[in-house]
Amino acid sequence: MRAAMQEYIDAFNRRDAEAVIALYADDASVEDPVGTEPKVGIEAIAEFYRYSVGLGAELSLVAPIRTSHANSAAMAFDVQVTLEQGPCLIRVIDVMTFNEAGKFTSMRAYWGPGDMAFQPAD
Amino acid sequence: MRAAMQEYIDAFNRRDAEAVIALYADDASVEDPVGTEPKVGIEAIAEFYRYSVGLGAELSLVAPIRTSHANSAAMAFDVQVTLEQGPCLIRVIDVMTFNEAGKFTSMRAYWGPGDMAFQPAD
Repeated sequence: MRAAMQEYIDAFNRRDAEAVIALYADDASVEDPVGTEPKVGIEAIAEFYRYSVGLGAELSLVAPIRTSHANSAAMAFDVQVTLEQGPCLIRVIDVMTFNEAGKFTSMRAYWGPGDMAFQPAD
Repeated sequence: MRAAMQEYIDAFNRRDAEAVIALYADDASVEDPVGTEPKVGIEAIAEFYRYSVGLGAELSLVAPIRTSHANSAAMAFDVQVTLEQGPCLIRVIDVMTFNEAGKFTSMRAYWGPGDMAFQPAD
């Protein structure tokens, strides 16, 4: 689980959307952020990552990945991305569940408006 | 939500089990760690915290608390505790859901055997 979570970060930073998508099971769901409509199924997930990886975000783990006593794991990271309003830091915790093949069956991203910090231009 | 999560950390560190318990709704559930049988209802939760707070653990946030676009929030922290085997660092991510009164309705703690580091005696 730890290796798959790390590959998620690394593939995102390589801007390799297809490698991110390949981490998911066909029937997976993605709720990013938690509280919005989940993307269900690999087609909707692929569309989401082709768009979001294309934004050029940089993901940095802020602490070691946590696992569990079951088929789920969690990680805290910061996202640095340039939005229309300018450069922005978004503080996120992702929780993934896994199937027996080691693919993500669900991802839920915890972040809210208060976890975004816009940075002044230089 | 952020204030309640912070109070959870602070009350734990004050060794004030009753203040931790007071953060929970009567019908809440606690799954700590994820993959073990949840404690359901305030009586079971109270018993769990009177025991675990009594262990004298110290909790330290390792990154700012994350919220969401819904009634849930997450936080990454380290637990320093002395177990029978000696001093131990446990790396944890807690995910809480909230009711309209701001009480926790569920807590799930993500940590596994690989997130524990025993430290050599001095």
